[in-house]
Amino acid sequence: MITANSPDLRSWISVPADSDFPIQNIPFGIGSWNGEAPVPVTRIGDTVVDLSILAEAGLLDGTGIAREAFLAPHLNEVMQGGKQTMRALRERLSELFRHDNATLRDDNTLREDALLPVDQVVMHLPVTIGDYTDFYSSRQHAYNVGCMFRDPNNALLPNWLHLPVGYHGRASSIIPSGQPIHRPMGQRRPDPEKPPVFGPSVQLDFELEVAFITFAGKALGQRISTAEAEDHIFGLVLFNDWSARDIQAWEYVPLGPFLAKNFASSISPWVVTLDALEPLRVAGPVQDPAPLPYLVAERDGCFDVQLEVGIAPEGGAETTVCRSNFKHMYWNMAQQLAHHTVNGCNIRCGDMMASGTISGPEQDSYGSMLELSWRGTKPLQLADGSERKFINDGDTVVMRGHGSRNGVRIGFGEVRAKVLPVVE
Amino acid sequence: MITANSPDLRSWISVPADSDFPIQNIPFGIGSWNGEAPVPVTRIGDTVVDLSILAEAGLLDGTGIAREAFLAPHLNEVMQGGKQTMRALRERLSELFRHDNATLRDDNTLREDALLPVDQVVMHLPVTIGDYTDFYSSRQHAYNVGCMFRDPNNALLPNWLHLPVGYHGRASSIIPSGQPIHRPMGQRRPDPEKPPVFGPSVQLDFELEVAFITFAGKALGQRISTAEAEDHIFGLVLFNDWSARDIQAWEYVPLGPFLAKNFASSISPWVVTLDALEPLRVAGPVQDPAPLPYLVAERDGCFDVQLEVGIAPEGGAETTVCRSNFKHMYWNMAQQLAHHTVNGCNIRCGDMMASGTISGPEQDSYGSMLELSWRGTKPLQLADGSERKFINDGDTVVMRGHGSRNGVRIGFGEVRAKVLPVVE
Repeated sequence: MITANSPDLRSWISVPADSDFPIQNIPFGIGSWNGEAPVPVTRIGDTVVDLSILAEAGLLDGTGIAREAFLAPHLNEVMQGGKQTMRALRERLSELFRHDNATLRDDNTLREDALLPVDQVVMHLPVTIGDYTDFYSSRQHAYNVGCMFRDPNNALLPNWLHLPVGYHGRASSIIPSGQPIHRPMGQRRPDPEKPPVFGPSVQLDFELEVAFITFAGKALGQRISTAEAEDHIFGLVLFNDWSARDIQAWEYVPLGPFLAKNFASSISPWVVTLDALEPLRVAGPVQDPAPLPYLVAERDGCFDVQLEVGIAPEGGAETTVCRSNFKHMYWNMAQQLAHHTVNGCNIRCGDMMASGTISGPEQDSYGSMLELSWRGTKPLQLADGSERKFINDGDTVVMRGHGSRNGVRIGFGEVRAKVLPVVE
Repeated sequence: MITANSPDLRSWISVPADSDFPIQNIPFGIGSWNGEAPVPVTRIGDTVVDLSILAEAGLLDGTGIAREAFLAPHLNEVMQGGKQTMRALRERLSELFRHDNATLRDDNTLREDALLPVDQVVMHLPVTIGDYTDFYSSRQHAYNVGCMFRDPNNALLPNWLHLPVGYHGRASSIIPSGQPIHRPMGQRRPDPEKPPVFGPSVQLDFELEVAFITFAGKALGQRISTAEAEDHIFGLVLFNDWSARDIQAWEYVPLGPFLAKNFASSISPWVVTLDALEPLRVAGPVQDPAPLPYLVAERDGCFDVQLEVGIAPEGGAETTVCRSNFKHMYWNMAQQLAHHTVNGCNIRCGDMMASGTISGPEQDSYGSMLELSWRGTKPLQLADGSERKFINDGDTVVMRGHGSRNGVRIGFGEVRAKVLPVVE
């Protein structure tokens, strides 16, 4: 059976070599152009396709999604029907874009209305985010942090191997790729013998993460099992969980990170569906001790997505400072979601759940400056000769992610954001 | 000048003695009846007033709020104009309800349409909540917890007196008074020498809190000063931050409480405006050491609101187990909001920020079972002779709050919720 994932599909829309967005991807996002209202869009190669126009023309009928849903400035309405309707939508789009389908290809007026070059499109947040949760599911990252801040011989805390540690973050300050951030002000205590001081953070950091976006869950009080979990996951984005390490170190005991994180988080604008990532599915690390039964996942739950982080100083070339992989997650998404709801916590359509910093085993695969520079003791050298312990004003941080199977490359594009000075 | 707060105001709507809702209150909420769509309402005594009908009749014109805003199933649209328009709305309603104002009083049709007995009205969440933040601002509570879990001689952590410690919580599981909750399942580790176990929480607790709801803030990157903060605060509700102490103890290191809290939080349905609480304003505790300049508040920022918590076993009478007061907050709301935004974090219309457990100095003023029973070592006796270390299935927990000045009582009504067994 030919599906949207079939490796031999070709599109009548041209796709550059090494594009993250062949016809096998079909990601979803929200775009606008010429100052018009943002609408749901997809992308093939470097071409953006306006789904509101396809819907209006009746080409998306039969997927179970109302035409009006494609007029909203976020994907939440389109997603309301859950996994099966989004799967039907992706399959329908795949058909329309196949090289031998004339419906849209040969309709000059409709095609010219609906297709735009990606560089003419402004991308926005793909969903109205309800709640945002951040996990802490890379073992290497938890180990590295434990070594630096606690005891290398007991780097993992006692609960870490028994449950996917997570905490709630701030939804309001999640922003799309391209929007600059300001260095945060805050309290820190550089000298533990002296009172805390107030001023700009001097340890601004990125965290390389991947986040998933949920469909609606169940009613408050009900649980989602590991077997059910992926039916509630729409797709994934790259996630830069900006962090101010000096603010974090002073504030985080006993209730966790707060102002060190909530000033901004940047995400890539294209939601790559879990269906599109299916060919990249791999087994995760062996879990020992065995998880409690509610956390046992029958199915392989990791995805072989290569990740990288680059830093480009003001006016300078980009230097890749980290190469990691999403497959390094100790706790996978199904386990995270089952844990999140095991107490009856309800999830909603458009919630976002991030992985936590994804650090691999090699020193250049650590997913934060904190780890890469080992708390500032080993500065990194950039291509322009300058050194970095943390992130400077004027730096642009870029994250990218993709995986390949059977000659097909599926990717996320990038999330990028420039750091501006504090607002005085 | 006569204002909505003037103590000598009387209404043509009768107000029972000891009502929390005299004409000087004029709270806001969302109500429905006869299965119709929920709409914005206010309340005088035991009478609910449908604001959508008053708006449709043109009686709320001139306040700067569009008539359509009063048709929404949450207050967010009504609140869009911020402090000045909500103040104008409250003053307008006060005028309409004054004993000598005939506009509504003598319009039999309109009055019969707009007024309903409170026992015929179902109350809903007052706002669509964006982000929810929980602070930890009662010194006695932080001290008590520090004594129990750490060292009585160093009960307060080093940061506590320097900043209002807070963390992000879950917005999706905030529910209105009256909706029962289910005891949560979860992981806990009763014996630190053995592996963790999974099952129903055996240490279910309430936390007595008060939460404020915000108007829109500033753009991401901008700060709200202590002097500006109250202009961004709409009003307050009672907040029961349900907590599972056994889950919390096992999960909370190092990123804070998560599943121990996010299964449910119950709020009272009537938003009492900060303006209505103005007569109850008092100075808070002396702050020593002096806060950093960005946390200095020129104005008294506490409010003399008596709070109480009752427990009613299944079919049994209620026993008051706690009498506290909102004035015990060490960090006030203006300081909390200034701290929350000092790093540029943006707040939105409808965000909710809770105080943290409000414990007073006396043993019966502690705001949680954890403290009242001193971690289960001193069980409480209820009126029916039964004992409680924590909350049992079938128990209903009720919180109330009010204050009085110049013979006028301003209150919140109550938040109540019954605890049902776990969902199997």
